[in-house]
Amino acid sequence: MKLKKLVLTGAAGRLGSYLREPLSKMCDELVSTDIADDIGNLYDGERYVKADLAKFDEIEPLVEGADMVVHFGAIVDEVPFEEMLGPNFIGSYNIWEAGHRHGVRRVVYASSIHAVGMYPKTEFIGTDVPHRPDTFYGLAKCFTEDLGRMYWEKRQMESVHLRILSAAQVTNPRALGSWLSYDDLVRLVRVAIDTPVVGFTIAYGVSANDRAPVDNALASFLGYRPQDNAEQFAEQILAEAPQADPTDIGTMCHGGPFASIPLGQSAVGSMGIVDDRKKT
Amino acid sequence: MKLKKLVLTGAAGRLGSYLREPLSKMCDELVSTDIADDIGNLYDGERYVKADLAKFDEIEPLVEGADMVVHFGAIVDEVPFEEMLGPNFIGSYNIWEAGHRHGVRRVVYASSIHAVGMYPKTEFIGTDVPHRPDTFYGLAKCFTEDLGRMYWEKRQMESVHLRILSAAQVTNPRALGSWLSYDDLVRLVRVAIDTPVVGFTIAYGVSANDRAPVDNALASFLGYRPQDNAEQFAEQILAEAPQADPTDIGTMCHGGPFASIPLGQSAVGSMGIVDDRKKT
Amino acid sequence: MKLKKLVLTGAAGRLGSYLREPLSKMCDELVSTDIADDIGNLYDGERYVKADLAKFDEIEPLVEGADMVVHFGAIVDEVPFEEMLGPNFIGSYNIWEAGHRHGVRRVVYASSIHAVGMYPKTEFIGTDVPHRPDTFYGLAKCFTEDLGRMYWEKRQMESVHLRILSAAQVTNPRALGSWLSYDDLVRLVRVAIDTPVVGFTIAYGVSANDRAPVDNALASFLGYRPQDNAEQFAEQILAEAPQADPTDIGTMCHGGPFASIPLGQSAVGSMGIVDDRKKT
Amino acid sequence: MKLKKLVLTGAAGRLGSYLREPLSKMCDELVSTDIADDIGNLYDGERYVKADLAKFDEIEPLVEGADMVVHFGAIVDEVPFEEMLGPNFIGSYNIWEAGHRHGVRRVVYASSIHAVGMYPKTEFIGTDVPHRPDTFYGLAKCFTEDLGRMYWEKRQMESVHLRILSAAQVTNPRALGSWLSYDDLVRLVRVAIDTPVVGFTIAYGVSANDRAPVDNALASFLGYRPQDNAEQFAEQILAEAPQADPTDIGTMCHGGPFASIPLGQSAVGSMGIVDDRKKT
Amino acid sequence: MKLKKLVLTGAAGRLGSYLREPLSKMCDELVSTDIADDIGNLYDGERYVKADLAKFDEIEPLVEGADMVVHFGAIVDEVPFEEMLGPNFIGSYNIWEAGHRHGVRRVVYASSIHAVGMYPKTEFIGTDVPHRPDTFYGLAKCFTEDLGRMYWEKRQMESVHLRILSAAQVTNPRALGSWLSYDDLVRLVRVAIDTPVVGFTIAYGVSANDRAPVDNALASFLGYRPQDNAEQFAEQILAEAPQADPTDIGTMCHGGPFASIPLGQSAVGSMGIVDDRKKT
Amino acid sequence: MKLKKLVLTGAAGRLGSYLREPLSKMCDELVSTDIADDIGNLYDGERYVKADLAKFDEIEPLVEGADMVVHFGAIVDEVPFEEMLGPNFIGSYNIWEAGHRHGVRRVVYASSIHAVGMYPKTEFIGTDVPHRPDTFYGLAKCFTEDLGRMYWEKRQMESVHLRILSAAQVTNPRALGSWLSYDDLVRLVRVAIDTPVVGFTIAYGVSANDRAPVDNALASFLGYRPQDNAEQFAEQILAEAPQADPTDIGTMCHGGPFASIPLGQSAVGSMGIVDDRKKT
Repeated sequence: MKLKKLVLTGAAGRLGSYLREPLSKMCDELVSTDIADDIGNLYDGERYVKADLAKFDEIEPLVEGADMVVHFGAIVDEVPFEEMLGPNFIGSYNIWEAGHRHGVRRVVYASSIHAVGMYPKTEFIGTDVPHRPDTFYGLAKCFTEDLGRMYWEKRQMESVHLRILSAAQVTNPRALGSWLSYDDLVRLVRVAIDTPVVGFTIAYGVSANDRAPVDNALASFLGYRPQDNAEQFAEQILAEAPQADPTDIGTMCHGGPFASIPLGQSAVGSMGIVDDRKKT
Repeated sequence: MKLKKLVLTGAAGRLGSYLREPLSKMCDELVSTDIADDIGNLYDGERYVKADLAKFDEIEPLVEGADMVVHFGAIVDEVPFEEMLGPNFIGSYNIWEAGHRHGVRRVVYASSIHAVGMYPKTEFIGTDVPHRPDTFYGLAKCFTEDLGRMYWEKRQMESVHLRILSAAQVTNPRALGSWLSYDDLVRLVRVAIDTPVVGFTIAYGVSANDRAPVDNALASFLGYRPQDNAEQFAEQILAEAPQADPTDIGTMCHGGPFASIPLGQSAVGSMGIVDDRKKT
Repeated sequence: MKLKKLVLTGAAGRLGSYLREPLSKMCDELVSTDIADDIGNLYDGERYVKADLAKFDEIEPLVEGADMVVHFGAIVDEVPFEEMLGPNFIGSYNIWEAGHRHGVRRVVYASSIHAVGMYPKTEFIGTDVPHRPDTFYGLAKCFTEDLGRMYWEKRQMESVHLRILSAAQVTNPRALGSWLSYDDLVRLVRVAIDTPVVGFTIAYGVSANDRAPVDNALASFLGYRPQDNAEQFAEQILAEAPQADPTDIGTMCHGGPFASIPLGQSAVGSMGIVDDRKKT
Repeated sequence: MKLKKLVLTGAAGRLGSYLREPLSKMCDELVSTDIADDIGNLYDGERYVKADLAKFDEIEPLVEGADMVVHFGAIVDEVPFEEMLGPNFIGSYNIWEAGHRHGVRRVVYASSIHAVGMYPKTEFIGTDVPHRPDTFYGLAKCFTEDLGRMYWEKRQMESVHLRILSAAQVTNPRALGSWLSYDDLVRLVRVAIDTPVVGFTIAYGVSANDRAPVDNALASFLGYRPQDNAEQFAEQILAEAPQADPTDIGTMCHGGPFASIPLGQSAVGSMGIVDDRKKT
Repeated sequence: MKLKKLVLTGAAGRLGSYLREPLSKMCDELVSTDIADDIGNLYDGERYVKADLAKFDEIEPLVEGADMVVHFGAIVDEVPFEEMLGPNFIGSYNIWEAGHRHGVRRVVYASSIHAVGMYPKTEFIGTDVPHRPDTFYGLAKCFTEDLGRMYWEKRQMESVHLRILSAAQVTNPRALGSWLSYDDLVRLVRVAIDTPVVGFTIAYGVSANDRAPVDNALASFLGYRPQDNAEQFAEQILAEAPQADPTDIGTMCHGGPFASIPLGQSAVGSMGIVDDRKKT
Repeated sequence: MKLKKLVLTGAAGRLGSYLREPLSKMCDELVSTDIADDIGNLYDGERYVKADLAKFDEIEPLVEGADMVVHFGAIVDEVPFEEMLGPNFIGSYNIWEAGHRHGVRRVVYASSIHAVGMYPKTEFIGTDVPHRPDTFYGLAKCFTEDLGRMYWEKRQMESVHLRILSAAQVTNPRALGSWLSYDDLVRLVRVAIDTPVVGFTIAYGVSANDRAPVDNALASFLGYRPQDNAEQFAEQILAEAPQADPTDIGTMCHGGPFASIPLGQSAVGSMGIVDDRKKT
């Protein structure tokens, strides 16, 4: 059952740009959107529309006639609440509300481990633990998950919330457990789209790492089977890593550096994330 | 240990106006605030300041020097998200952030059953179940609980979240289980203030009703012991009630009418809430 | 909301005969039934019809027009499966099926601790533990509970399953925990009837005994509050009791003597149950 | 430890006929039984006896001297309760009771997902969840599981209850999760027989499907490791499937079409089950 | 069933000396023991024998012929492991081993909250949580509970482990939740003795305090119903208490000061325990 | 991050002697210790020191300057408590206390399934179940795990407790589930050492056996991925095994023969453990 129309938000972002090609093949029409002026060459069936997530009037027309929205647009770092409010909170509301008004069946959302980042890593957390956000960034993910659950229970609009752990190069010991490879990201988004019925579902976005610290059992019916494993990097990473401090909250908690940084202050610098996306 | 300064938001509201007198006796100075121009005669030690929760600059000065904030200010009905955003979402952020900047120790917050209103009543829910909001109103409660947990875990600012079931006259069968009497409300707020250490705690606000459908076990250390029991009204209420429809979500779920109304549409009318507060 | 018509099965039995009077006051018409030829003087509004539970054709006409059925009819001792089959298995099916065909809203059923009698008493079991029957008698209760759940989930016909522990005189140490007084039995049946919506609910039938070994938390919304307490008999009972053997399964398990007797063999004799019902 | 004698019921059925050959190799003597007059050519060591499960006198002689019974005989579709009673309820009792009288060590039973078919698929259910049958067919499975537990706890007669999801060709999206291949069925029956001690154990009968929605953790000690995976059919099945309706109970629940059909009405037609068994 | 012989260890201690009189009335012969030379006037039926718990040869003769041992003897403060080893570890072994050799039916043991003292008070802990000792003192309680469980499971020797919270005057906010009055201590010991069968059971020793932070549900069958409530002291205690620090582990954890003191260092001084026992 | 100094206790034992070579390669200096006079040829960087675990003065100097201790020294059979006390109880205390005094970061400890050996095998137990020791041997493991947790929570000294099931040749049906191959033992010890932060962690030591009856989910972040599978021996072992008795506690429980032997009496003989270690 090929989809007629898909909408991808955050299409200019690091993860969004990787999703454009595979998504373009799953539908007749892919509408990619972001706040950039331009996202380069387009794939077959793809169309780019610049739009601001925080503005309902810019978002609503895009979703008209769409089967599903793949919602990856957001500020992807910790910033003060006032800056987060528009794109990450109101933006989510706009996607769901516009989707509801136009009969969109499902939203596939880039949630994050930071919705539950304050749990210690010695707890193998499932997808049904109460929220413990580590930042305003994580708080926006909590908000959106709760919003998505409500739209399902009140309006039968489905959503899958992908709590991505770390979709970036493996450059530190934490990533040996938290890594999500680009290929596995695509696998995960694919099953979130092709599973016939999902209701409201949360799934952790993590590769088949030996050290993966989270539990996707409740989302088993999705059939997500990651193929990559960060253990290939373990020997080198561990050899080079400085000795860890077990009393450091950023080492002990699922959220990693987000768990230890002050609220509202950028964490990305300290995580060694490199923009390694392929050029289209 | 009498407190020096308390701040009460929502002081002109139905519940807030009942709290003014007892709170004024628990501290040297009570700063009551709301968006009304006036709240009538003041109690000893009470001062009224009109302020808009959605405006950080109006809220911040109020909390300076306060030990705790009793945060009951909010829109107390279902309205569209755009209207809820300022007072119920941003307002909560403003209270916590202003509190943090001024060293406030604790917030006592009027949360609501509507944060978990979509659970069926045949589940005796504890305070640690994942959120299932029934309205935008409930979603704002979810947001604030998660925010409060984060400020505790990241900044050691305490909070107690009182998930009030229904603090209104008992006029229907649901209220036989959900009633919170004014006296029990005062009892609950009192222990939320006088318990030496609370960290982040959630407690249901409900009287000692025979039919109370929620579980406060995890908040046992607070020592909240309600004294009133809606069973006194059961015979009359049940005799007069029309036959219930077990397939109606508003009858089956904890959220009652909020669980069945459309999102964004007022529920208060259908709940028979009467403004029965004493005039000060 | 007074009921129009109630049906009571097992009206000639020990518990059924106690329920006749209070039930007769809760409805305009009480149809009492049993396999006895006669149950003595009738209460206002009561009518007696002899019928065999195992025969659909005898049961069906009785429930026509009834709001609810209070189903206490059954063999109340352990007997071989072949004897149990008619009244306790097929009888339950007949009640639910006939009820469904005639629009009966709810069945209030005399289930039993023997549906879970093999749990050790050192486990404080809730109403949601998987079945562990101790006898064919208990197996019929498991069957009926599962049947009731199915009729609720497939056909929206409600039921409350009262897992009675021991509604008999307190003559041994086990009964200090398991006693259900007649007055508390009436209280329990009353709330099972007057609660507006129950869906499928299980509740243990036990008085407010200090030593009550079971947990009714999940049925809290029913508001069952027993008033009697077998502890009044404790001193005498314990003084006279022989020393117990902790390796005896009948002492250690919730089912008591039913847990230790051979399947299919009468247990009542060993339990000291005396027919102490009031004569009507 | 090769077994001396095995009994297979339902030997003429779709699954039973697949089991005859492998079972015949695990014992000196295989007694196959069914209500058919004939089951074709026999395997080495196999003997066929026509018998009616509902008749104790026909069943009892078969099990004399048997080590174990592999009990697959039953009506394998939804029918009215009155028709289900003999083969599926009384038949199970007859197997266990006759087995007990003749010292049979263990029954391996074809239970079914329909014992818990009303759970939503978004719950990854274990083998210890309370029953939620979706049909009279499922109710008979609940009955037999409870019976088997009781015979273990009271009489130390072991049993393994294989809750088969769908042992049929993969022709629809549900089967991508629920498929049990014939080879995996044989693997499952084999470990249910060769595990030295099983007590009372429940295990889901499902292949190693990526989308398998159930959890066999509690039966880990059996060592059942399925090898087949319905994901091989996913691309084609999903491409051809009509759009699913998330509010349809038959799509959302484990029981699939059994969850949505009316009680007592055949479901097999709607499931596309084809009799694809090999001819012996 | 009056007991023939009881043994009380720690008879000269603060709690032990309160138990002598009530225990002397529950048996024909009470053998009290401690390491003191003398415990003053004896009650009817009481005999005092000086003995060192750490010496098997001194303990063994005392328990000969005893029905039960009430084992309260131990160092009741934190000391270095080397000093704890004899009385608190080896002493427990000696009691159980000597008891086993002489057919003692049951040990009633003074365990302690300090076996689980590192749990935060915001968790309402049951009796089945894994151990989290806060001191060597607590570690000895863990050891004895595990020992007692093993003697039950291997040798069918029963024991009840009373995890006493704080049986001392209420002089600080923690005690508002943790107080066990002397009368409630006697009630608890009484049911631990008179309950016919206990197997291996753990129960928290705490009064009916509004703020009691622990859960005795699993020991419900014991019928322990405390009557005292520290809330009577709350107003004064809270008025006088200094402001608490929520980041202090000794305030946040069940173990109180034991949770924050260094291992091996006395905690009693900081707890304000006064020897207030009545003189016999 | 290569370690500077490791200490291995029990270096002359069956498992310890297998660990010497791999450990010697993970550090600059390996100090091996045991009570044997000599352990044969030494590996590069290895030094042997004879020492008695029960004597603090002999142990303390060894750990000075060590990063971690791999603590495998102990009596590895059931013996009377008095004999177990020195090496298995006091020995553990000595390792942790000496480690603490010298700033050792972590202990990797050979715990055992016998700490929880009385659980029935039909329960798939996790690492967070309460202790149920089957022997004094298991009781010492319980003691050490609780000790290790306390040193982490009070003194931030880390430990990993490897609950080894059976690291011996596969000679009986139980071992099909419980086998830990030497290679998997090395894998497990390696991740217990190289994981940057472990806090207090328990992990079962078992190979990737199809029939493995325990759950390491909570230790997932360690990334232990065993490679061996005892199923290769299943056909032969099961063919030769005598018929098992399901009522035998030693067959039904995780502890195997330890669960059924009398306390204090050697179990090793009955387990067919052969000293098959390689000669260095």
